[in-house]
Amino acid sequence: MSEHVRTLRVVGIGTGDPEHLTLQAVRALSDVAAVFVLDKRAETADLVAIRKRICAAHIARPYRLVSVDDPPRERNPTDYGATVEAWHAARAERLEAAFAELGEGEIGALLVWGDPALYDSTLRILERIAARGRLPLAYEVIPGISSVQVLCARHAVPLNAIGGAICITTGRRLASGWPEGAESVVVMLDGDPSFAGLDPDLTIHWGAYLGSTDEILVAGRLGSVAEEILRLRAEARARHGWIMDIYLLSRASQGSSFGSP
Amino acid sequence: MSEHVRTLRVVGIGTGDPEHLTLQAVRALSDVAAVFVLDKRAETADLVAIRKRICAAHIARPYRLVSVDDPPRERNPTDYGATVEAWHAARAERLEAAFAELGEGEIGALLVWGDPALYDSTLRILERIAARGRLPLAYEVIPGISSVQVLCARHAVPLNAIGGAICITTGRRLASGWPEGAESVVVMLDGDPSFAGLDPDLTIHWGAYLGSTDEILVAGRLGSVAEEILRLRAEARARHGWIMDIYLLSRASQGSSFGSP
Ligand SMILES: C[S@@+](CC[C@H](N)C(=O)[O-])C[C@H]1O[C@@H](n2cnc3c(N)ncnc32)[C@H](O)[C@@H]1O
Ligand SMILES: C[S@@+](CC[C@H](N)C(=O)[O-])C[C@H]1O[C@@H](n2cnc3c(N)ncnc32)[C@H](O)[C@@H]1O
Repeated sequence: MSEHVRTLRVVGIGTGDPEHLTLQAVRALSDVAAVFVLDKRAETADLVAIRKRICAAHIARPYRLVSVDDPPRERNPTDYGATVEAWHAARAERLEAAFAELGEGEIGALLVWGDPALYDSTLRILERIAARGRLPLAYEVIPGISSVQVLCARHAVPLNAIGGAICITTGRRLASGWPEGAESVVVMLDGDPSFAGLDPDLTIHWGAYLGSTDEILVAGRLGSVAEEILRLRAEARARHGWIMDIYLLSRASQGSSFGSP
Repeated sequence: MSEHVRTLRVVGIGTGDPEHLTLQAVRALSDVAAVFVLDKRAETADLVAIRKRICAAHIARPYRLVSVDDPPRERNPTDYGATVEAWHAARAERLEAAFAELGEGEIGALLVWGDPALYDSTLRILERIAARGRLPLAYEVIPGISSVQVLCARHAVPLNAIGGAICITTGRRLASGWPEGAESVVVMLDGDPSFAGLDPDLTIHWGAYLGSTDEILVAGRLGSVAEEILRLRAEARARHGWIMDIYLLSRASQGSSFGSP
């Protein structure tokens, strides 16, 4: 492989509204020569449309679109750890080969849904390629508006109780109990929310397809709105073929505690 | 008071880099008639300069700048709860009076540092004014890039361990121990970090004045870099007269756990 440093920009694009892009992201995209798309197979038509629209609006010159599909993944491995490790290595290798195509002076972009730091594997893959040390790599991260922020903004609620701690977690993790010490819990990646076993007096702020024209919002006392959320969620998922949703659970006293901010 | 609805936009402006503004924020600012500034006394010269620069760049027409100072706060009250409550009420009243000046068809903006949902009192004040029900109020929230995201972006690190939970908390809270069940802990509002009592094998990513030209970044094994951070922090604080810093603590295994994303 040639020795010049491959330069990449990891750009957070927000969660569906092309206006979530920051001025920094707009500038970062303007002069890229290639856009790399990881795991095209996982993309919904809506996501493809948004990415296309962003590239068309902000990349000022002709650019290459380079798709890098994930290697096939063994679903029921005997040695889980070793299999996942091998899969990650294969993934990094494919990307490394794609980045190698960047010419001297060219800049590549990776567009990441929401914020690149939040439940996304792009930075880990780049770190892995850099650690292999075979391809000289330089990359910069441009933060993006995350689904957590859009959820709060659309409901016009604070994320934290006054002076309180916030926990951001996954559906799977929440199943093993309320995170101790947190007044506010944000749940992402919950493929099948049940809300059973949670205090019905919690306040929930739920949102699906946030930032898009299909956005759905529900808020209220968990015990009173849980059924409605599950019904809306099932309907929307059937209609779209997919769903992305997120929710904030908070102890009822949210607004009334003391101290500041 | 007149009966027309006062329309406000709460706009997240990011953490010091004017390019943190989203396209949505730029559009939201373009046609405002007034910008309300809460507690001008708390503002550093740098913050005033950034706000001015943002308004000048993005507000397309002449606008009024309305400063609303916080009412004086009793520092050693006998009845803490009642005093804070009275202070919040007085604060809401002052703002209500300021908003009343908005004419029919005029839109007012409140510029919030970082993201409006994260450790900021603006949304709570608006909620309080709306709940009083004296002034008809409509407001919309425009999310902004938070210091948490800029910290991760500048260090190019993920916020979460793979599939792991994240806790965002305050310096005061952290003093009472590591949040159970979290692999990653972000600490904000820590006026006097000590790091004593924390596992020296934690990884720390620390940043001060993030997004500005004075930005300082340090990362490494907590036990190895804690002293350097405290020294840099004290120096910078003395030089600037103030400091804003934030740090991410993570269990050392960050990149090496299994699962995805
Ligand atoms: C793999 S994570 C990526 C998160 C993304 N990096 C971010 O900053 O929001 C996907 C999860 O994010 C949440 N999410 C992302 N976009 C969303 C949207 N537009 N509406 C609701 N939830 C969304 C959902 O919880 C979903 O399961
Ligand atoms: C009152 S909170 C406001 C947070 C803000 N709403 C946000 O989204 O970042 C102030 C705290 O945010 C963090 N912070 C805000 N701006 C920062 C910056 N530019 N650099 C480092 N930390 C910052 C610090 O921990 C500071 O104590």
